[in-house]
Amino acid sequence: MTREANYTVDLDRERRQGLPEVVYGPGKTDAEIAAIVESLLENNSGPVLVTRVSADTAAVVGDAVPGSAYDALGRVLFWRSASPGAFTLGVVTAGTADGPVAAEAAAVASAIGMSVKEIRDIGVAGIHRVMARVDAIRSFDAVVVVAGMEGALASVVGGLVAGPVIAVPTSTGYGAALDGVTALLAMMTSCAAGVTVVNIDSGFGAAMAAFRLSKSFTRTGSNE
Amino acid sequence: MTREANYTVDLDRERRQGLPEVVYGPGKTDAEIAAIVESLLENNSGPVLVTRVSADTAAVVGDAVPGSAYDALGRVLFWRSASPGAFTLGVVTAGTADGPVAAEAAAVASAIGMSVKEIRDIGVAGIHRVMARVDAIRSFDAVVVVAGMEGALASVVGGLVAGPVIAVPTSTGYGAALDGVTALLAMMTSCAAGVTVVNIDSGFGAAMAAFRLSKSFTRTGSNE
Amino acid sequence: MTREANYTVDLDRERRQGLPEVVYGPGKTDAEIAAIVESLLENNSGPVLVTRVSADTAAVVGDAVPGSAYDALGRVLFWRSASPGAFTLGVVTAGTADGPVAAEAAAVASAIGMSVKEIRDIGVAGIHRVMARVDAIRSFDAVVVVAGMEGALASVVGGLVAGPVIAVPTSTGYGAALDGVTALLAMMTSCAAGVTVVNIDSGFGAAMAAFRLSKSFTRTGSNE
Amino acid sequence: MTREANYTVDLDRERRQGLPEVVYGPGKTDAEIAAIVESLLENNSGPVLVTRVSADTAAVVGDAVPGSAYDALGRVLFWRSASPGAFTLGVVTAGTADGPVAAEAAAVASAIGMSVKEIRDIGVAGIHRVMARVDAIRSFDAVVVVAGMEGALASVVGGLVAGPVIAVPTSTGYGAALDGVTALLAMMTSCAAGVTVVNIDSGFGAAMAAFRLSKSFTRTGSNE
Amino acid sequence: MTREANYTVDLDRERRQGLPEVVYGPGKTDAEIAAIVESLLENNSGPVLVTRVSADTAAVVGDAVPGSAYDALGRVLFWRSASPGAFTLGVVTAGTADGPVAAEAAAVASAIGMSVKEIRDIGVAGIHRVMARVDAIRSFDAVVVVAGMEGALASVVGGLVAGPVIAVPTSTGYGAALDGVTALLAMMTSCAAGVTVVNIDSGFGAAMAAFRLSKSFTRTGSNE
Amino acid sequence: MTREANYTVDLDRERRQGLPEVVYGPGKTDAEIAAIVESLLENNSGPVLVTRVSADTAAVVGDAVPGSAYDALGRVLFWRSASPGAFTLGVVTAGTADGPVAAEAAAVASAIGMSVKEIRDIGVAGIHRVMARVDAIRSFDAVVVVAGMEGALASVVGGLVAGPVIAVPTSTGYGAALDGVTALLAMMTSCAAGVTVVNIDSGFGAAMAAFRLSKSFTRTGSNE
Amino acid sequence: MTREANYTVDLDRERRQGLPEVVYGPGKTDAEIAAIVESLLENNSGPVLVTRVSADTAAVVGDAVPGSAYDALGRVLFWRSASPGAFTLGVVTAGTADGPVAAEAAAVASAIGMSVKEIRDIGVAGIHRVMARVDAIRSFDAVVVVAGMEGALASVVGGLVAGPVIAVPTSTGYGAALDGVTALLAMMTSCAAGVTVVNIDSGFGAAMAAFRLSKSFTRTGSNE
Amino acid sequence: MTREANYTVDLDRERRQGLPEVVYGPGKTDAEIAAIVESLLENNSGPVLVTRVSADTAAVVGDAVPGSAYDALGRVLFWRSASPGAFTLGVVTAGTADGPVAAEAAAVASAIGMSVKEIRDIGVAGIHRVMARVDAIRSFDAVVVVAGMEGALASVVGGLVAGPVIAVPTSTGYGAALDGVTALLAMMTSCAAGVTVVNIDSGFGAAMAAFRLSKSFTRTGSNE
Repeated sequence: MTREANYTVDLDRERRQGLPEVVYGPGKTDAEIAAIVESLLENNSGPVLVTRVSADTAAVVGDAVPGSAYDALGRVLFWRSASPGAFTLGVVTAGTADGPVAAEAAAVASAIGMSVKEIRDIGVAGIHRVMARVDAIRSFDAVVVVAGMEGALASVVGGLVAGPVIAVPTSTGYGAALDGVTALLAMMTSCAAGVTVVNIDSGFGAAMAAFRLSKSFTRTGSNE
Repeated sequence: MTREANYTVDLDRERRQGLPEVVYGPGKTDAEIAAIVESLLENNSGPVLVTRVSADTAAVVGDAVPGSAYDALGRVLFWRSASPGAFTLGVVTAGTADGPVAAEAAAVASAIGMSVKEIRDIGVAGIHRVMARVDAIRSFDAVVVVAGMEGALASVVGGLVAGPVIAVPTSTGYGAALDGVTALLAMMTSCAAGVTVVNIDSGFGAAMAAFRLSKSFTRTGSNE
Repeated sequence: MTREANYTVDLDRERRQGLPEVVYGPGKTDAEIAAIVESLLENNSGPVLVTRVSADTAAVVGDAVPGSAYDALGRVLFWRSASPGAFTLGVVTAGTADGPVAAEAAAVASAIGMSVKEIRDIGVAGIHRVMARVDAIRSFDAVVVVAGMEGALASVVGGLVAGPVIAVPTSTGYGAALDGVTALLAMMTSCAAGVTVVNIDSGFGAAMAAFRLSKSFTRTGSNE
Repeated sequence: MTREANYTVDLDRERRQGLPEVVYGPGKTDAEIAAIVESLLENNSGPVLVTRVSADTAAVVGDAVPGSAYDALGRVLFWRSASPGAFTLGVVTAGTADGPVAAEAAAVASAIGMSVKEIRDIGVAGIHRVMARVDAIRSFDAVVVVAGMEGALASVVGGLVAGPVIAVPTSTGYGAALDGVTALLAMMTSCAAGVTVVNIDSGFGAAMAAFRLSKSFTRTGSNE
Repeated sequence: MTREANYTVDLDRERRQGLPEVVYGPGKTDAEIAAIVESLLENNSGPVLVTRVSADTAAVVGDAVPGSAYDALGRVLFWRSASPGAFTLGVVTAGTADGPVAAEAAAVASAIGMSVKEIRDIGVAGIHRVMARVDAIRSFDAVVVVAGMEGALASVVGGLVAGPVIAVPTSTGYGAALDGVTALLAMMTSCAAGVTVVNIDSGFGAAMAAFRLSKSFTRTGSNE
Repeated sequence: MTREANYTVDLDRERRQGLPEVVYGPGKTDAEIAAIVESLLENNSGPVLVTRVSADTAAVVGDAVPGSAYDALGRVLFWRSASPGAFTLGVVTAGTADGPVAAEAAAVASAIGMSVKEIRDIGVAGIHRVMARVDAIRSFDAVVVVAGMEGALASVVGGLVAGPVIAVPTSTGYGAALDGVTALLAMMTSCAAGVTVVNIDSGFGAAMAAFRLSKSFTRTGSNE
Repeated sequence: MTREANYTVDLDRERRQGLPEVVYGPGKTDAEIAAIVESLLENNSGPVLVTRVSADTAAVVGDAVPGSAYDALGRVLFWRSASPGAFTLGVVTAGTADGPVAAEAAAVASAIGMSVKEIRDIGVAGIHRVMARVDAIRSFDAVVVVAGMEGALASVVGGLVAGPVIAVPTSTGYGAALDGVTALLAMMTSCAAGVTVVNIDSGFGAAMAAFRLSKSFTRTGSNE
Repeated sequence: MTREANYTVDLDRERRQGLPEVVYGPGKTDAEIAAIVESLLENNSGPVLVTRVSADTAAVVGDAVPGSAYDALGRVLFWRSASPGAFTLGVVTAGTADGPVAAEAAAVASAIGMSVKEIRDIGVAGIHRVMARVDAIRSFDAVVVVAGMEGALASVVGGLVAGPVIAVPTSTGYGAALDGVTALLAMMTSCAAGVTVVNIDSGFGAAMAAFRLSKSFTRTGSNE
């Protein structure tokens, strides 16, 4: 039986998509993460990120590969963070428990070059909280809406702004929340036209979707 | 093999719950409906209703048993409608397609003695439509919220009013709406505390839940 | 990246809905809970509650913020409990394992001003147990029915009483009980008209639904 | 490509299980049904049945193969019906819409030699209807409980009688009834110990389960 | 708030169904189990059982209430075991992992007075194992078939024997086995007519279903 | 009972989101559609669209309200179509059966001012078909990927382009395709980071999501 | 808006996989089918097939494109059928209703060059029917097992033969059969190791899987 | 109660299917595994394997029964490994997290006599990685594709090769990945005709399916 070496890093991704491959932490040893990060830092020029990293792993890998920063709430470890660009991403959450997912979105987006602004705890059960922030929300170039339970905030925000809305269902809630499936289905059937959805708890996915937008945003400018 | 006579009507229900048994139309012949209605009219004194009745059946049965009225949108056929009581029920819908379910709720509630007010098409994608009607919604003794798709209106209304909110998920929508299951799950996990839910498309169930409330409302008064 | 301060408390909720925001314990540190509770006590005048609190957290937070009481079975920690009002809420359970959910409902309802009476272990497999308590059940202003497995008790009670019935499916049972989804679906399709349902294991939700009822109950009185 | 002749009848089944194979009607032409029935009548000595047969097919096949009888409600066509034995099967239904499934159970059971008694429309929303029939239900050698929606009747009957209870979930109901899946799951998790369940709408399956019981009943006798 | 005493034992069940209430162990303290058992032993005359009991609890409770026996594989603790009756129950398993569920069925059935015979590991992937045991299987008065994964053994046995077959789906298997739901659905749709099904992993439920059969078996004899 | 007039059109939406409300055709009569369209044409200045319109309805409404155009494959009826803007939207389909959904996306996007290019039938089972069109796909400002069955095309395209990818699961396929739920789930879990998803068969939703993007695209330009 | 021509045929597939693309009939007009078939006949040299074709369409297209043959039960229309090769495929069905799916498998396999043998109606409820055919089943180079309901036949055959077994779940059955999902899940978790599964009702998929096998079979020979 | 000895080993399987029964480790004690392995080694002549074995158990059992080898990543313990045959199985993975499942497939296949080649980390988000390996993939006699999340690699590979493709869905991913169910459904509905699927995470099942193929491969040779 012939076994290939462990882990193949997609070193071509930066050329193809403008960003080195982002490493998903779970299931890899600290040593493996460190080796992959080193390879990415060496063979690419942009920011290098690892997601879903515990504080312990962040400490060990950070010691092994100098220059890291760590977002503890979002559990993102990164090197060569980009400086904040012209594209402003709003990250809006419904409730406290959605915080870590929002933090992952914010930390990733920030590290790869977006200006990020967070608005917290404006779930629709207190709709005045949303109404009080409408101007701020409308000022963003795109909005990530992070919500669990019934995920209604995505529809309300989707109806208030004209720009792109990326909804992230979270596994917040219990019982009929079905670990986020209910929020996912609800956001999918949002009555606000043109809201798009990423996977449950995937702050990372939302940040990457925003990154795709921000690139077309930039390109436009350069077309002028 | 010994077979009992077809259809046993629960003639005792009016004594027990203050309202004659309401007849569910589907699966019964026009003649059977007419016979059941006659029995109920004879053995009870309150309003007699049949739900989910087509216009054709309504015509035939209405001819056979005098004194009927028919709500075409809600598909409710009834006799001996009660006069509107002090209890005011608001029936609020998210979108046009929720209309027939709301109409069933309204027609049943009205026939059994509530004062009913309808507010239509205030889905949360245009949240200003909700905000413009807040005072009206708050003036109701109880609110039935009828919504399909992601059902977010229940959460918004639930957060705006202090009184009872009965949410009716509808089968409006397609794909991930899963014939109303998504709205049901979403309403179940509403971030607005104390919202209660009835079965998909069950305008009837919402009206009956309101009837239970309206009875305690009345009883309270008599306690003074 | 601009991060807002952690946790936004909805201090306006008491004005809007007659009760300060109830805090959901899981996912918050003891210190955060204590800070939120202090803010609520300071800015509102009504009872302040935290749900799903372990005995350990209750001890720590209770030490930090004086005046607390703790319901160990229902896992509810509270301050400034309201005195029992005229509205009597019955909390009825099917089996022993439904006890903690019923206790949550009872503790919350009691703390926010309802008179609460509990009836335990009258699951329908011994229907005589239900029949023996019919008069008690009928004497309540509203009934919360807490049941797992097939949740049949909600239908039986719903058929016996004329007033509001709030059904709480629980995750009691195994296999086909599907962590409470079976009970939820069963209660949703109850053959007793007008039974309403809240989320799985949500004793809190049932108490809040009852609170909404009790408010209209009170208002009625004042209308006389 | 070598194709076998259409339809292989299991002519050995009567020897093995005491009853000729019962024919499932749907998907077979009238001519095919007639041919199969003739083969069964010729090669076996017991009753021959076809289930889920429309009145039209019953007329055509009945003309082709003399000696048939037809139960229109249960949609069962049969020949050489057995005479009623000592084993009495009760068939109990929750609501009117469960009638055709109950009729299938009753017609099959009767044709294969059980004495059948039906009790209709005793759904648990009117529990007094069950209580009024307890003695009758207890007098049966086994009880088939036919119920849709939340299927609660199976639990109540299961708790009242000591003998075998076979529950048949039906597709009666809408929305959260999920075409009978809710009733199936609910019956599976019945709080009444020892209730067994057959497939949704399978009156036939319940009758056959009872037939298996009735055989051990008979055998016991002959062992004395 | 008025709280009832913990745990209501259904002391009437023995009179109604011929067997004292069987106690479900999980969620009760050792002391509570001991108290309930003592009450049952005092107020009833038949066997007293507790299911799903760990060895540790069995030791503690067994010390507190003398006369216990414990089936370690089936995790059943019992007192006043009945002597084996004339009714012989076969308990047949598909694979090794189904052993504990089968043991629960066997231990309960044995303790409440059936003669139990077990046949192990005859899953249909080695159909010769089934064929080699056909005579034994046919000799039982009823057969409990315990199988996980695709649960096919129930259909094969159901086709081989004429008497009652009670199928118990187990949570054996992974992935598409869906914790026993696949076996449950498969058994529900068995091509062998008249197979009945109980809840996933419910050896107890199967034994109780058999107990209901055995009672009619006994009664028959006494009718001769 | 007080009923509001039928159908409330959100005439403010154009001001808020840059486009008049798009009308969903099903469940409305031809006359109602015509009335709504007239109101929108009168009170707004942008394009007016109705989706899911049959050819018959298109003819009738088109006669009643002059100036309409109709996309037969996409079933979109529209007035005052915008002229093609600088933003180029690619609409890519996996198979022939995905055509109508793609056509809805294309027709809506085109009518509201995007330049649309379609690429058909490049499902991943013939990956060379995708590879042959990479340059074209990369040239689009955003890509809508329309695919049913396993929906794999979204992942492949998502990995090839750097810009925004909006995936539309379709109900193409049978059996395990589960009416599009499988494609939806698959697209949600795409291994290509930053792919976003809209509802099953919602070509309309994809076009609206692209419209949100195209607006930020435009705004950027004007910021230079 | 630029629209590509309808329908892109993958003319390269024969070179890549040894067989021209097989056309899926539904959703295409007779004229479209005829055009595609003509293109395939012209640009490829092997057999050309269309699946899921009604008799009416078969007649029309057959008239338009000479040389066709039609398998009415399997609903397959084909041209240039291959002559039967050395590879013998057995197609085994559990019940009568599985016939059309088996016929699709057989017709496709036969047309593309396998020798096909069918064995019908050997469902496991009459296991002797399987045992009587063991030698025949073992003689096939590969076996396609077509079964609905609980799909148990796949496990039994999988345990009897040493060669490849391809299981096809069918939508035969009702209620808990869930339109074939139950059979699919059951076959997935077969206790017979190494059984593989294709989509529900996909006789075509099974034939194509067998075609892949038969090719390696042939290649082996040429290696000698 | 009569209990059979624990664990019945199917010693006939080697004769019937060419390979001794493979032991599934979980739920068996080290001593039981050792005893079963010894019995298999004694009564059969081919390789003996135990799957899902921890390193600890491997050490203990390996000490007890000499001659073992252990694949740590695949968690397979085996004795009397076969020498690599002419049949070459490719095992291809989409991502790093699919590694253990692929390793199980590779270790089992290797131990039972196939030549195994692994290709890692060629998920379709970097389709160039697949294209770069096409020749290698086409050179295999059969390909096992191991992929989680949306499982798209199976379709791409299925379209590239002419030979047998066995897809293994894995539980890799979170949220909408639903523990592998999404990948399973996606692979089931692959647009590449003739791809077959085994259970989630079942590297073992894939190896056994390949073993069935390899046998027919061998037999062909001997026919020449």
